Amino acid sequence: MRMFDVIEKKKRGLPLSDEEIGFFVRGYTAGEIPDYQASALCMAICFQGMTGEECASLTRHMMESGDRVDLSAFPYTADKHSTGGVGDKTSLIIAPAAAVLGLSVAKMSGRGLGHTGGTIDKLESIPGFRTTLTPEQFMKQVHDIGAAIIGQSGNLAPADKKLYALRDVTATVDSVPLIASSIMSKKLAAGAHTIVLDVKYGSGAFMKTPEDAVTLAETMVEIGNANGRNTAALITSMETPLGEYVGNSAEVMEAWHVLTGKVRGDLYQVSVALCANMLSLAKDIPLPDAEEMVKYAIDSGAARDKMLDWVSAQGGDPDYLTREKFHIGQYRRIVTADRDGWLSTNSEGIGKSACLLGAGRLTKDDTPDLTAGIRLCSKRGDRIRRGDVLGELFTSDENRLDNGEREFRSAMAVMDDKPADMPLIYRTVR
Amino acid sequence: MRMFDVIEKKKRGLPLSDEEIGFFVRGYTAGEIPDYQASALCMAICFQGMTGEECASLTRHMMESGDRVDLSAFPYTADKHSTGGVGDKTSLIIAPAAAVLGLSVAKMSGRGLGHTGGTIDKLESIPGFRTTLTPEQFMKQVHDIGAAIIGQSGNLAPADKKLYALRDVTATVDSVPLIASSIMSKKLAAGAHTIVLDVKYGSGAFMKTPEDAVTLAETMVEIGNANGRNTAALITSMETPLGEYVGNSAEVMEAWHVLTGKVRGDLYQVSVALCANMLSLAKDIPLPDAEEMVKYAIDSGAARDKMLDWVSAQGGDPDYLTREKFHIGQYRRIVTADRDGWLSTNSEGIGKSACLLGAGRLTKDDTPDLTAGIRLCSKRGDRIRRGDVLGELFTSDENRLDNGEREFRSAMAVMDDKPADMPLIYRTVR
Repeated sequence: MRMFDVIEKKKRGLPLSDEEIGFFVRGYTAGEIPDYQASALCMAICFQGMTGEECASLTRHMMESGDRVDLSAFPYTADKHSTGGVGDKTSLIIAPAAAVLGLSVAKMSGRGLGHTGGTIDKLESIPGFRTTLTPEQFMKQVHDIGAAIIGQSGNLAPADKKLYALRDVTATVDSVPLIASSIMSKKLAAGAHTIVLDVKYGSGAFMKTPEDAVTLAETMVEIGNANGRNTAALITSMETPLGEYVGNSAEVMEAWHVLTGKVRGDLYQVSVALCANMLSLAKDIPLPDAEEMVKYAIDSGAARDKMLDWVSAQGGDPDYLTREKFHIGQYRRIVTADRDGWLSTNSEGIGKSACLLGAGRLTKDDTPDLTAGIRLCSKRGDRIRRGDVLGELFTSDENRLDNGEREFRSAMAVMDDKPADMPLIYRTVR
Repeated sequence: MRMFDVIEKKKRGLPLSDEEIGFFVRGYTAGEIPDYQASALCMAICFQGMTGEECASLTRHMMESGDRVDLSAFPYTADKHSTGGVGDKTSLIIAPAAAVLGLSVAKMSGRGLGHTGGTIDKLESIPGFRTTLTPEQFMKQVHDIGAAIIGQSGNLAPADKKLYALRDVTATVDSVPLIASSIMSKKLAAGAHTIVLDVKYGSGAFMKTPEDAVTLAETMVEIGNANGRNTAALITSMETPLGEYVGNSAEVMEAWHVLTGKVRGDLYQVSVALCANMLSLAKDIPLPDAEEMVKYAIDSGAARDKMLDWVSAQGGDPDYLTREKFHIGQYRRIVTADRDGWLSTNSEGIGKSACLLGAGRLTKDDTPDLTAGIRLCSKRGDRIRRGDVLGELFTSDENRLDNGEREFRSAMAVMDDKPADMPLIYRTVR
């Protein structure tokens, strides 16, 4: 088999066989197929696409390129993945709720980059919380508590890692089959039998329209199912950030407030929907029943108690939560509207503002200010009068306030017309 | 400027600016832009194409990447290029005919590879003929005789050389803008003010249909004109080889026979048409007049005499031509038809057969048997009876006859139906 023929075949729009895709993934990972052939193939895929079968095959071969987490000791393993958003702290709510309901959540999460946050940064804002565990500690905690979230560890899907780095510099990221295979190869390697995907659409998401998000979601669900996992996806709005807070400590606080019953709204709604789909798929329970069970797990306080057990197990200080000792930046600025109108939001801009306040990373090597962030005091679509409070910015570095405010103002535009309503949960793909 | 943005722009179907194309060509030639970005761009060009302006710009930048032959000392410089065929020995007829008519033919030609022949191999079959001259010798000969043909020398269009090698292994050869720019960058660097292209179509050519050949021809003519050269193209048939002979010594013999008046037919016709276009463009003479002048130059024997001067000037033995001492392989085989029908031909197959007989190169490092080749005794479309002679194979290595015959037989198929007529000269693009 020659890589040349594989590229040529895809260029002419013909589907590649499982053997051909395996040949490519193994050869590329081993360094036998050069970057210049891999990038030509990726570009051809950008134009010609891939069938569902090809996507499933590419994903499987990338998964098989490295370590795989063995979760076979647990009967009901479930994982959740978001395509990335602003103010998205649902994992902090879902993990304990799912554990209460008998699911095993053995999860690896990422750090934030650019305008999007990451669960690992959020958890590290809790004093003492360890995001690195040995495989034995990780398994034992999942067994004892039902939930553990750690940073990426091991050598999961190295083929994807190598290919993604290449796509990143050859303008070939933007391809649904390649995005879907990349995400799913890591999720499959992480071992959970049930996978629920939160595919974001809107101004703060990679997919700007709900239709594009549906296409990506359908591709990923097909890949998951074809590889023997229970897979579902929710298409949810990232037209505006989820909840009221953006920033690491602040988001832990808000998640805690959902678990204590103090906060409801969109964050609660999306968390319940995601968790209910996990439960329904994992235990084969009708979705409305699963939804009631998830709500009860949260509303009864059981998930709150589980959160404390989980945080303690990973070395975190439970008092930090129960006594509400959240570290919120001491330098604060209230931003008010300078005109009347309707509030429009740009989530990416809000994420960038939080990043400028110190909450995020501009490059992988930055250390974020976990106390920095934003409180959104007005919601997208609100009727605004001049002088109304749009939001509050906070940071540990006073010098960051001006840049943060400038970005925040342009992301929170008061317009003459009311922005179109965008549904919070656009669709579920199962 | 970032190469990433150049790729992205082309991927989205937007035309690249002259600055962007120059940035790419210079950066790639200098090794600052890696192969994997260049191959991604080439693949995007395969799908999105290039405007005439982009092609002209790409060609100019590739030409400017290396040496350029300065022919400004000569008032009427003319060059001719064929996209590659089987039995195509027109250069051997055109060069002396054009020289007779006051044109300066300072030509660099290639060697054969695969099923196609090369003018340099053909010339080297003449005892003593030198295909390497110093620049001074080359210029002096063009001045004295009006014609010189040597192998590729100097560092012409190194950007094209590097890019072509990459395209060759990334399935990105097959793109009209890239093919056209590649050919024209070398032709522009070779310095002639008038360029006439012989774009082949049919079974022995890169372009299988006349329509595709027209597209390539139009693109190349536009590139030439945009870069200030008089450019024209003829679309000619390679559905069957040109003339009766394939193979290096044999083709020199046949060209000689055209110059002595012994042979006419398709070879004469195409040679006259190409040379007439060169003369017409270079000296601004109406095409019908130019055609008469070219015919007279050949029919009068003036071009034959010029051929002898030219061959002598490059060290070749004129007696080899005048005394017809042509080296034709001693091992010969007559191939006859094994059924009645109509003769169909596949030029690529005939070229491969000649190659198997030793006439060509399977890899760049092979040394061809210049005595090997084929005489085609029946023509495409002939009514054939079982036992009729289809052709004669010849070689210096008896062991090659069986393989050569097998390939020849499958390329000379006797069919129930008469093959469709394909015009010898399909169109002229000026």
